[in-house]
Amino acid sequence: MPSRKLVIGAAQTKPCSLLGIEGLEPDEILDYLKLARQMEPVLVRGSNLLKGKRVVLLFYEASTRTRVSFELAAKALGATTTVVTATASSIEKGESLIDTGSTLHALGGDVIVMRHPSSGAHWTLQRALNLPLINAGDGMHEHPSQALLDAFTMLRHKRALRGLRVTLIGDVYHSRVARSNIFLLSKMGAQITLCGPPELVPEAAATLVPAPAGSPAPVRVTRSLRQGLEDADVVMLLRIQKERFIGRRLSFEQYVADYQMNSERLRYAKPDAIVMHPGPMIRGVEITSEIADSPRAVILEQVHNGIVVRMGILARALGKA
Amino acid sequence: MPSRKLVIGAAQTKPCSLLGIEGLEPDEILDYLKLARQMEPVLVRGSNLLKGKRVVLLFYEASTRTRVSFELAAKALGATTTVVTATASSIEKGESLIDTGSTLHALGGDVIVMRHPSSGAHWTLQRALNLPLINAGDGMHEHPSQALLDAFTMLRHKRALRGLRVTLIGDVYHSRVARSNIFLLSKMGAQITLCGPPELVPEAAATLVPAPAGSPAPVRVTRSLRQGLEDADVVMLLRIQKERFIGRRLSFEQYVADYQMNSERLRYAKPDAIVMHPGPMIRGVEITSEIADSPRAVILEQVHNGIVVRMGILARALGKA
Amino acid sequence: MPSRKLVIGAAQTKPCSLLGIEGLEPDEILDYLKLARQMEPVLVRGSNLLKGKRVVLLFYEASTRTRVSFELAAKALGATTTVVTATASSIEKGESLIDTGSTLHALGGDVIVMRHPSSGAHWTLQRALNLPLINAGDGMHEHPSQALLDAFTMLRHKRALRGLRVTLIGDVYHSRVARSNIFLLSKMGAQITLCGPPELVPEAAATLVPAPAGSPAPVRVTRSLRQGLEDADVVMLLRIQKERFIGRRLSFEQYVADYQMNSERLRYAKPDAIVMHPGPMIRGVEITSEIADSPRAVILEQVHNGIVVRMGILARALGKA
Repeated sequence: MPSRKLVIGAAQTKPCSLLGIEGLEPDEILDYLKLARQMEPVLVRGSNLLKGKRVVLLFYEASTRTRVSFELAAKALGATTTVVTATASSIEKGESLIDTGSTLHALGGDVIVMRHPSSGAHWTLQRALNLPLINAGDGMHEHPSQALLDAFTMLRHKRALRGLRVTLIGDVYHSRVARSNIFLLSKMGAQITLCGPPELVPEAAATLVPAPAGSPAPVRVTRSLRQGLEDADVVMLLRIQKERFIGRRLSFEQYVADYQMNSERLRYAKPDAIVMHPGPMIRGVEITSEIADSPRAVILEQVHNGIVVRMGILARALGKA
Repeated sequence: MPSRKLVIGAAQTKPCSLLGIEGLEPDEILDYLKLARQMEPVLVRGSNLLKGKRVVLLFYEASTRTRVSFELAAKALGATTTVVTATASSIEKGESLIDTGSTLHALGGDVIVMRHPSSGAHWTLQRALNLPLINAGDGMHEHPSQALLDAFTMLRHKRALRGLRVTLIGDVYHSRVARSNIFLLSKMGAQITLCGPPELVPEAAATLVPAPAGSPAPVRVTRSLRQGLEDADVVMLLRIQKERFIGRRLSFEQYVADYQMNSERLRYAKPDAIVMHPGPMIRGVEITSEIADSPRAVILEQVHNGIVVRMGILARALGKA
Repeated sequence: MPSRKLVIGAAQTKPCSLLGIEGLEPDEILDYLKLARQMEPVLVRGSNLLKGKRVVLLFYEASTRTRVSFELAAKALGATTTVVTATASSIEKGESLIDTGSTLHALGGDVIVMRHPSSGAHWTLQRALNLPLINAGDGMHEHPSQALLDAFTMLRHKRALRGLRVTLIGDVYHSRVARSNIFLLSKMGAQITLCGPPELVPEAAATLVPAPAGSPAPVRVTRSLRQGLEDADVVMLLRIQKERFIGRRLSFEQYVADYQMNSERLRYAKPDAIVMHPGPMIRGVEITSEIADSPRAVILEQVHNGIVVRMGILARALGKA
């Protein structure tokens, strides 16, 4: 596909929302990744690209890294930010999501970055609101900026996404990070393996994305960590929450015994495989400290890359790139 | 009355607090409304009028629209803001309100914008504190910036406040918005009708403001929605909270049946009557979606106007207008 | 000791953390005090010394004055701030303190200002993190910026710290403010008296700092308020929390009867003794309003001085002074 030239701030583009990865074309994904690369020198020298713009950070769920990342990304581009959380707001008074969004628009918000516990909440709001909207996580559904920063990080270490073998291990079922990554990676031609017990990795996850005509299915499911890691270029661990195991046949201890990533098991992957985690990670559960602190782990790099990826997302949302 | 000329930033005026509408003269009210109009181009182009000034937002109660509105108004004028909420502060440790206020002053605060659950809290604080103070809501008492933005919004749609027929429907008794509006509208010569059941609109509300000598009383109370709406230019709905009905003779369902604003009932008002609501509104309770989303509703305009009104209030509080 | 010349912003110094007073040399303490003095004109005229720097305020405990003080100090130097509190963050999800710190570093934080309920938490974090860290209070251990602003305030009223007689009254045992003050004052040659009942001022507190060879012990303990106040230049009251008395032999009422500072008792101190309190103070418990509001009390001055002291701490932490 032909490479489009992106010029930050030069030509105004149409403002656009980022609700999920599922609805993006591969070249739109590429554009976001290119934009992020262009933002790296901008982050260092600072910028007034979004001066006078008001970024509303509307968080119905607690968050440190995603909220701070969007906030610092906005400030690095000269925007004004304001944080609205459910616990300190009229949200509790029974106002509808759409009315809250409309109010924030009327208050002068130019873009809303929202995290919401209900899958699909952003689509409901977008239909009613003539304002760019960025999904910072909706229930068990999507977390598009995370998938973009993950792809950006993979490309720092691997030549291309096409043909890349990425293994996701852990609670795929409840993970919006997994879902957005599966959409993005399959669109870009990567080979995805989902690995974990049936309670966390249902068989149906393999059919989340359709196989292109004449091609093998881009997603496969396996219960065996050894099989799952074979020839992996990227090992992506997902957060494990103890409360998911309550009242299940599967025990938390069994999960740790079978799937915790340690250095012995990582040997099944390629020698140059990188280890990723969206955070917050719980050491001793899904990952040992030995792995978390090893040079193979690029977990803090993911966090760092999140800033430039989100600078690009904000600039694009506001029609400035 | 002679029109005073207001010049933003040119001549420094004396810093002054805004505690309530009740203590204002009509020409002071007019000044705030004029200032708000002058702030409209300032909001668009941005300003450094309050550069170096520190605005403390001290919220003892949850709030979205009022807090964000004051915050963005302050930032639009170049001020620095800091938010202090009761849940994350030493307020919980038993410090007195006056000591908290003095501390925020000593910390360099140039003006305090405060919301407090106790009626009159601001007057207590003001007596002890040599710092401009803005009332962003005190218990069931006053919410002056809301009344000013409501008046500003009415003047966008109606020729004058004098002689305007404004009907307030709902929980007048518990509403600081109602109280500040009644003070403002009666001072400016409007005719006010309060409408609702006796539990929410006590007979005594009619005597909240005295009748000028030789004039009819500016406030009347009616139980009949039809009578209340007759010839109304402005229909202002107030928030209904279900918990107010617990243990009362009046049922929540009966209130909705009798007083919910819908398109059939709105026909009793003037054909060009506007519908207002201070928010957050609960659709299906005090208002139907049909009305809330109709062109007659100016609810989001109220929110939008709040920014310029509060820019003016902040500039005046800091002696810059 | 020879006076070092400090030049703000001119020569870049090495970034350095401020974890506690105990590890500082006397001339390092003096440097912080000089820096604070140099920051006074900077505060008035504003500065871009820390422009582009990101200050993360990580508060695991509620705070008004310390958080706002650091926030406004950072903003006065042109830095960007972001507040992270435990209640609205992934901290609750079980992430380790070190991983939270590393994440905030990876998010672009240039310095972390942290309050944490565990004594020593900052040292744990510092060992793992290559980032300047400022202790804004750790459990019952240290609160170094408070001790520095207290010393700065004393020097506004008294000629020197050497030989100064400082009496601390109240809950020394649980107080990080007391501990940091004892370290600082003893290093600078002051004479410290700790006064209160054994439950709040254990005998062992006298040995918190060693006596210099051939000198009298710098700290003494007394149960008698009269003895404790004798010849005092500075009377520092500490916060008393009612819950500390639950299940103890000592009653809250007895404490108030024996140790509350009132004007009659203050006569035991020198006629020009000043009264200090780190706040929040509870009037009618450790202090009467008569004393709190008298010209002898420099409590709000302490708050005010906190800003310039913290401007200096931040500038030094970031290698700009």
